[in-house]
Amino acid sequence: MDSKREFCKVKHTEIAKLIRAAGNRSADLLYASGFPTADDYLFAEFGGKRLIVLSPLEIDRGRLEAAPGVEVLCDTEFSSADGAAVVRELAARFGAEGFLVPADFPLGFADELRRAGISVTPAGEGSFFPEREFKSESEVEKIAEALRAAEAGTRRGIEVLRESSPGEGGVLFRRGEVLTSEILRGEIEAELLRHGAMPAEGTIAAGALQGAQPHNAGSGPLYADTPIVMDVFPRSVSTGYWGDLTRTVVRGCASPTVARAFEAVLEARELGKRMLRRGAIPAEIHAAAADHLASRGFPTGTGERGRHGFFHGLGHGVGLEIHEAPRLSPRNAEPLRGGEVVTVEPGLYYPEWGGIRLEDMAYVTSGGCRVLTEIGTPFEI
Amino acid sequence: MDSKREFCKVKHTEIAKLIRAAGNRSADLLYASGFPTADDYLFAEFGGKRLIVLSPLEIDRGRLEAAPGVEVLCDTEFSSADGAAVVRELAARFGAEGFLVPADFPLGFADELRRAGISVTPAGEGSFFPEREFKSESEVEKIAEALRAAEAGTRRGIEVLRESSPGEGGVLFRRGEVLTSEILRGEIEAELLRHGAMPAEGTIAAGALQGAQPHNAGSGPLYADTPIVMDVFPRSVSTGYWGDLTRTVVRGCASPTVARAFEAVLEARELGKRMLRRGAIPAEIHAAAADHLASRGFPTGTGERGRHGFFHGLGHGVGLEIHEAPRLSPRNAEPLRGGEVVTVEPGLYYPEWGGIRLEDMAYVTSGGCRVLTEIGTPFEI
Repeated sequence: MDSKREFCKVKHTEIAKLIRAAGNRSADLLYASGFPTADDYLFAEFGGKRLIVLSPLEIDRGRLEAAPGVEVLCDTEFSSADGAAVVRELAARFGAEGFLVPADFPLGFADELRRAGISVTPAGEGSFFPEREFKSESEVEKIAEALRAAEAGTRRGIEVLRESSPGEGGVLFRRGEVLTSEILRGEIEAELLRHGAMPAEGTIAAGALQGAQPHNAGSGPLYADTPIVMDVFPRSVSTGYWGDLTRTVVRGCASPTVARAFEAVLEARELGKRMLRRGAIPAEIHAAAADHLASRGFPTGTGERGRHGFFHGLGHGVGLEIHEAPRLSPRNAEPLRGGEVVTVEPGLYYPEWGGIRLEDMAYVTSGGCRVLTEIGTPFEI
Repeated sequence: MDSKREFCKVKHTEIAKLIRAAGNRSADLLYASGFPTADDYLFAEFGGKRLIVLSPLEIDRGRLEAAPGVEVLCDTEFSSADGAAVVRELAARFGAEGFLVPADFPLGFADELRRAGISVTPAGEGSFFPEREFKSESEVEKIAEALRAAEAGTRRGIEVLRESSPGEGGVLFRRGEVLTSEILRGEIEAELLRHGAMPAEGTIAAGALQGAQPHNAGSGPLYADTPIVMDVFPRSVSTGYWGDLTRTVVRGCASPTVARAFEAVLEARELGKRMLRRGAIPAEIHAAAADHLASRGFPTGTGERGRHGFFHGLGHGVGLEIHEAPRLSPRNAEPLRGGEVVTVEPGLYYPEWGGIRLEDMAYVTSGGCRVLTEIGTPFEI
């Protein structure tokens, strides 16, 4: 009787949570279970207990790799391996009438559960495990490890550029062939793999005017004396955590305008990092960086050839997703609480000469921040 | 009036379809729009018309890269960029009361649409675009291109193994260090990137007893005179299509048992490919391969040390997903219709000596199949 009363007490203060996803694709699931998979499996949490339900194919690996404290069940332990039947038995076991699920929970399965009388309520976007925003020391280490791979990839990129020399029209040549964005990206990404990290789709190695579009990954020949943006954001294969790093370099000599823009962006990045601390307002940090760029002669606006200046957010949280809370954006007035890992990445983009972006990562603490990025910020190489 | 009547006629014979997903993550979306993205966007189809709705950040790239015939709209063309508002305006424009959506449509957004009076009905798993199972010539070319990258990666793996020689206890050494699964995998994956393909999480380079577990990616030292399984399945960065290839090699000399197992698996693979044709029953092809392995002295069963023999499906469809319909499994009695691209990958796994798997890809035609794999099947190297 006592234990039952205890159980009922828990029932009224805790929400039962449910995920069905692949460990490789759902940051919420990987956060909760620690078990990456290519295929979907079930996770449930209730009263501080966490469990996952695996098929016989995955059960041995699951028992070895799941996070401590996560109970690993085999679907053969249920009366049917069918997902809805398993969830029904879990609900009965927990005494739960329904589950909170992530916003991206699959609709087909949700409707099946609802038809079976189990209520499922989607959480707001990104708010299923709000504690994901605040990193433990062990998570910071994992992020730093992914960042080390990004630094190795970027160093390799710089080495490849240094092996090149300009030919006709300033086109860079290396080992007798034109050095393209594709070759540079391939060399950077191969280095990431050697460091246990998987390249993102979208590693940026963009030169000249392509660099003026922040999301342009770059294609075709690279040129001397123009800025080349390398934005490298790999994911650690062993942990699932991401690193994020951007450097912009010039092979040869920059024009005076580009050199001034580089200085302004570097100053804005350092200013942004200095403002990070518990209690700071992201929108104010963004505004300070934007104001600094404007004060150095690089205001943001729209001209005949489209937007120019600094027209994206100053940074974003990084963890098991490459973009997660908090955003360092003009719209985020929520004070930092400490424990966030964020990027600080001001940039300047001009259709006339290209783009410059410089990105570091930092861990927000009570009195400031701990910068996680170790590589320097080379310019003319 | 005439055009309106025409429209109403269409309305009763066509189903409106809706997707909200990221182009990089949803095979259905990439199939329909041709536009890969890291972030979510909306796709809708009605009466043979297809359209996508992009943010201003993606609109220029979308107009360049979306498939021919897909109308590209900017969310600024709607009264609000809010997703539910956009879908409501699309429904009004189509005269549709609701939408069929993929089974993995996000529940949070579905509930929002339902609250706004728009019905959303999930399709069965994998049946949103059933035509994805049957490939066009251009799709077969894209799959073959990804397979060429897999072959290049595998050739590189073989080259690396050939550069190694056995030291104490049979451990392979290369360039003065122990040759591990991690190094072999890294070299294979770097080669994939050089060929424009992204390695999967889970490229297998598993030696000795690890090869006895079909999903074990391999870790630690590799050994001479034991089978080493390389299962390489990259995705083309430019098209999103996958290739899939498995070879098993021995650096040195195989034991008589392993040599006999290799021959049996090779024969089963060739038998499986010979049976592929329009009208063939996948379950029968699987059974024929399993029977052949048993007749060669390698029956499937469970012993004291777990399962042994051939205990996975003979193959699976490949396209914009690495595993898609049709399965060549004991449970699939649906005749092939021609146009499918499938793997044929029998294997033998024994806790006593490891595993052997040999995998080719083929395009099913009316009278047989066109084998897409070009690389040979080396054994002792």
